[in-house]
Amino acid sequence: MRILYHMPHDPASRIVRIVLFEKGLTARLVETRPWQDDGSLAAINPACTVPVLVDEAPTGGEVAISPAAAIVEYLDEAYTASPLLPSTSAARAETRRLCSWFNEKFEREVNEPTLRERIDKRLMRRGQPDYELLKQGTAALAWHLDYFAWLLENRSWIAGERFSAADIAAAAHFSALDYIDAIAWDKFPSVKEWYARLKSRPSMRQILQDRINGLPPPSHYDNLDF
Amino acid sequence: MRILYHMPHDPASRIVRIVLFEKGLTARLVETRPWQDDGSLAAINPACTVPVLVDEAPTGGEVAISPAAAIVEYLDEAYTASPLLPSTSAARAETRRLCSWFNEKFEREVNEPTLRERIDKRLMRRGQPDYELLKQGTAALAWHLDYFAWLLENRSWIAGERFSAADIAAAAHFSALDYIDAIAWDKFPSVKEWYARLKSRPSMRQILQDRINGLPPPSHYDNLDF
Repeated sequence: MRILYHMPHDPASRIVRIVLFEKGLTARLVETRPWQDDGSLAAINPACTVPVLVDEAPTGGEVAISPAAAIVEYLDEAYTASPLLPSTSAARAETRRLCSWFNEKFEREVNEPTLRERIDKRLMRRGQPDYELLKQGTAALAWHLDYFAWLLENRSWIAGERFSAADIAAAAHFSALDYIDAIAWDKFPSVKEWYARLKSRPSMRQILQDRINGLPPPSHYDNLDF
Repeated sequence: MRILYHMPHDPASRIVRIVLFEKGLTARLVETRPWQDDGSLAAINPACTVPVLVDEAPTGGEVAISPAAAIVEYLDEAYTASPLLPSTSAARAETRRLCSWFNEKFEREVNEPTLRERIDKRLMRRGQPDYELLKQGTAALAWHLDYFAWLLENRSWIAGERFSAADIAAAAHFSALDYIDAIAWDKFPSVKEWYARLKSRPSMRQILQDRINGLPPPSHYDNLDF
């Protein structure tokens, strides 16, 4: 049985759930908070982060894979239906550049001072969000959205002319931020139009149905017409 | 002409130089300090970081690739001689896990408070290193070295029984830290024995010959018998 250790609001975990669905694969989802680990998470991922995918590899042998970027590469290599990386070197490089952008740059500059401050800190019972951090994160988010708006004025999908793993990374991150109503969609029409297309994909439905106890999303969150 | 925009002391840039050499490829090296960018770095990498590789792809078209992880994947796919990722899914996943470990976790927990504080800050003329950060980084480095010592007591190379991109990532990071004499090699004999093997590879020679003006490395730095 394939198992995904994840957190529902975590963008990197959402990436893997969307990829699994796009590939027609299922997994048992095990909600796992790294800060409450009793050693079982560290045993399958010494970095003690989610997501971790445990899979019976098609080439044989059980394998525990992390972080999200390595899981995406693994799934795209091991299950070749519906490829999520393009076929040419240049397009693959562009897709990977943007996946890294989200997993590293966006995570650090935007998620940490906003999403982590608003949700993770609450789940950890570590007090109120830091207002200065929220302000910094909000400013950084506006800069990132400007960049993605410009990209999407010049291409149909995040990394080029075809849907790819970069769209999944972007949708995972934007959906998590939209849960805390952090995105002013009307200021970024090209991003909004792209996100409307993403939202209508069956792979996004499961994601948009998750709720955090005591912290409801804005009313437009799972509305296809937002 | 293939061009690598890099900084000599930057571990991620070193990874790409070692990979190029291992693949039998050459590139013109252009030293590039992101904090002095006049817009030409941002034009080829909007994240404004090094390394960036500009290559005439074998499948046609010029391509600008970043960050290091995407460059390694690109080079291993485009130039198939001397593969740096293993052949099985499980081994590829383990190699990528450890490459990410260095590019993300190690960079943040160790390099930023030590290497960046000691070298980048000096090059930026931003004053003396912060002693508290150096102390934190040194403690984190000891924890990381313990982990790698344990790995290397249980396998011949960082990611398994064969030399891979994970060894290159580790050698690039450890060599940069060794330049500032941050590694107590004698406390970690399995890591030291592995690093002696790495140091003797021709791909490491060019790296170990670089010097930073006014900041000489310790005498053992480029000594094979250290």
